[in-house]
Amino acid sequence: MFISVRVSYLYCFLATCCYLCSMLANKNQERTSLAKLGEFGLINHLTEHFKIYSSSTQKGIGDDAAVIDNEGFQTVISTDMLMEGIHFDLAYTPLEHLGYKAVVVNLSDIYAMNAIPKQITVSMALSNRFSVEALDELYKGIYRACSFYNVDLVGGDTTSSLKGLGLSITAIGQAKKEKLVYRNGAKVGDLICITGDVGAAYLGLQILEREKQIHDAHPGVQPVLEGMDYLLGRQLKPEARREMIQLFDEHNLVPTSMIDVSDGLASELFHICTQSGVGAILEEDGVPLHPQTEEMALKFKLDPITCGLSGGEDYELLFTIDPKDLDKVKYMPDIFIAGEITEASEGVKLHTKGGNIHAIKAQGWQHFQKD
Amino acid sequence: MFISVRVSYLYCFLATCCYLCSMLANKNQERTSLAKLGEFGLINHLTEHFKIYSSSTQKGIGDDAAVIDNEGFQTVISTDMLMEGIHFDLAYTPLEHLGYKAVVVNLSDIYAMNAIPKQITVSMALSNRFSVEALDELYKGIYRACSFYNVDLVGGDTTSSLKGLGLSITAIGQAKKEKLVYRNGAKVGDLICITGDVGAAYLGLQILEREKQIHDAHPGVQPVLEGMDYLLGRQLKPEARREMIQLFDEHNLVPTSMIDVSDGLASELFHICTQSGVGAILEEDGVPLHPQTEEMALKFKLDPITCGLSGGEDYELLFTIDPKDLDKVKYMPDIFIAGEITEASEGVKLHTKGGNIHAIKAQGWQHFQKD
Repeated sequence: MFISVRVSYLYCFLATCCYLCSMLANKNQERTSLAKLGEFGLINHLTEHFKIYSSSTQKGIGDDAAVIDNEGFQTVISTDMLMEGIHFDLAYTPLEHLGYKAVVVNLSDIYAMNAIPKQITVSMALSNRFSVEALDELYKGIYRACSFYNVDLVGGDTTSSLKGLGLSITAIGQAKKEKLVYRNGAKVGDLICITGDVGAAYLGLQILEREKQIHDAHPGVQPVLEGMDYLLGRQLKPEARREMIQLFDEHNLVPTSMIDVSDGLASELFHICTQSGVGAILEEDGVPLHPQTEEMALKFKLDPITCGLSGGEDYELLFTIDPKDLDKVKYMPDIFIAGEITEASEGVKLHTKGGNIHAIKAQGWQHFQKD
Repeated sequence: MFISVRVSYLYCFLATCCYLCSMLANKNQERTSLAKLGEFGLINHLTEHFKIYSSSTQKGIGDDAAVIDNEGFQTVISTDMLMEGIHFDLAYTPLEHLGYKAVVVNLSDIYAMNAIPKQITVSMALSNRFSVEALDELYKGIYRACSFYNVDLVGGDTTSSLKGLGLSITAIGQAKKEKLVYRNGAKVGDLICITGDVGAAYLGLQILEREKQIHDAHPGVQPVLEGMDYLLGRQLKPEARREMIQLFDEHNLVPTSMIDVSDGLASELFHICTQSGVGAILEEDGVPLHPQTEEMALKFKLDPITCGLSGGEDYELLFTIDPKDLDKVKYMPDIFIAGEITEASEGVKLHTKGGNIHAIKAQGWQHFQKD
């Protein structure tokens, strides 16, 4: 032990010297841009060599949350990082809403495992342009989310940043082992189900971006937001699908696979298909769109179904069920059957209202490609 | 349920309108600077109204880590956020060391609960100045820490930032309920123990800052780092005190209270005293300083004991034991008995080598006061 510590200090010392020298020499290193790999490619690239040491690690990277066995309840853990200027724009996001949403998006990941969120930790990095009153607003939102979803704030870290606000939230949930639902359990013939509706949050964002542009160009003009309350609410104050998990429990339904819709329906369906080793056929008719979504998409000259498939941040649940469980979901409110799982060789396809079959592309959010 | 959702959308819509209007009106709000409260004051202020909903929440905010009961092993969770320009300067921190250290500081919090870290999650926010090769370096450090401490990387989030690198790591550990050690268990008459030595990481940082200043002023000058390997190692590549937790277990020792030394020995002793409702008398003779720490402190015209008390990032363990356990620790390597717990009314004091008694002030890191 002592020797290894000594060696590591020596290593460290040498590495630092080399590093400082290379800094001085301005050494040109090979450089692959992050955009080349994309977010999921980057995660795979960085984590592929990591080994699993603990028998308590039931599920590591690659699902909505990690799963840890405690020889009692399973612990389910999910974490998200939100950065100002990337995930939110404080020009049109009230801090209270931001706090609320930051919690909800993490709880959504826990529900997507068919688990119950119990605790969160909140880490914050703040520049000194933030006042205590501003943080009070943020925490009012966090508090409201904790109260509404009955989760406990149990820890975190508060530090400063050179620029902007950074939020990192970790949600911790509990589930019995036999209740957990992963992304990799979909079987050929399973039915694809979606809760609520999709695409609205994306259009809410388009409206807010438009109003910001108008405001920047014409500072005196009042924002026009009438008739858009649903879309704005979906963007600014989304809710996680807690009641669905309760319904599943009451009806003794365990989906075969499940994921929450944060990056867009198409992207999530690809995750399920890839991890389950299956294909899928999605019915355009079955993709639930809110009337305001359809109307606003057309005003923005966008195809409503594209908004539904590729718009992110819906925080609905996409899940698959064994056909024998159809009777259980048929009468559950707000669940739409939108297609069927097929052989992997069939790919992931959309059956349009017009009767055509198209391959679906997973777009989702590509952080690094937007840079 | 449906009604409450409708109401919340309406609320949201109205709030957004008001917010956008107030944005347009440039409303002057009351403003209290973060510096006024300080980090711990801010955390208390923001979290004092939060309730606990889950019976599984054994310990929330206020210790090295939160504790969750699973009707089996207890889950121990700790999280830290590291921001470029605040916690590290990439001008002199090799990315591999940064990755290693970011993991270690979190594991240290888990060990400080007398628990064994088993998993971590890693969230990153990156500006597009980072290449895949740079991240490979960072992950090499994370990988080395995971291998050395046998912890599993089980999740995280990777996103972009407008400026700089942000890292948020959450460590998850396990312990039997009866083994957990909190900050609030110190009793009058308990002995105060410190592992290893303190103050060295702070001086390592001073050296690196000095070399950076020299380099900025005279770009051609080579850094002079001979004879400082220990101090640099303590700053750039600290280790967590895993072997102590193993020793405690082998000798069936459960400290009465424990904390890791991240913000400075004095600050940590204050945490133990405040939470345990006790005072303390620390012997200057008992505060372990490395010879390089003493030597370099004098070169920087600093008082070595002040570096030991107020320098941060040592990642040693500060703990208290019942005097009847003295025989158990007496022969454990690298543990120093440095004082005694007293009545709260006695305050927290230092007994100097010269025989004087001084009140100790907790300085620690005050992020927001540096802004």
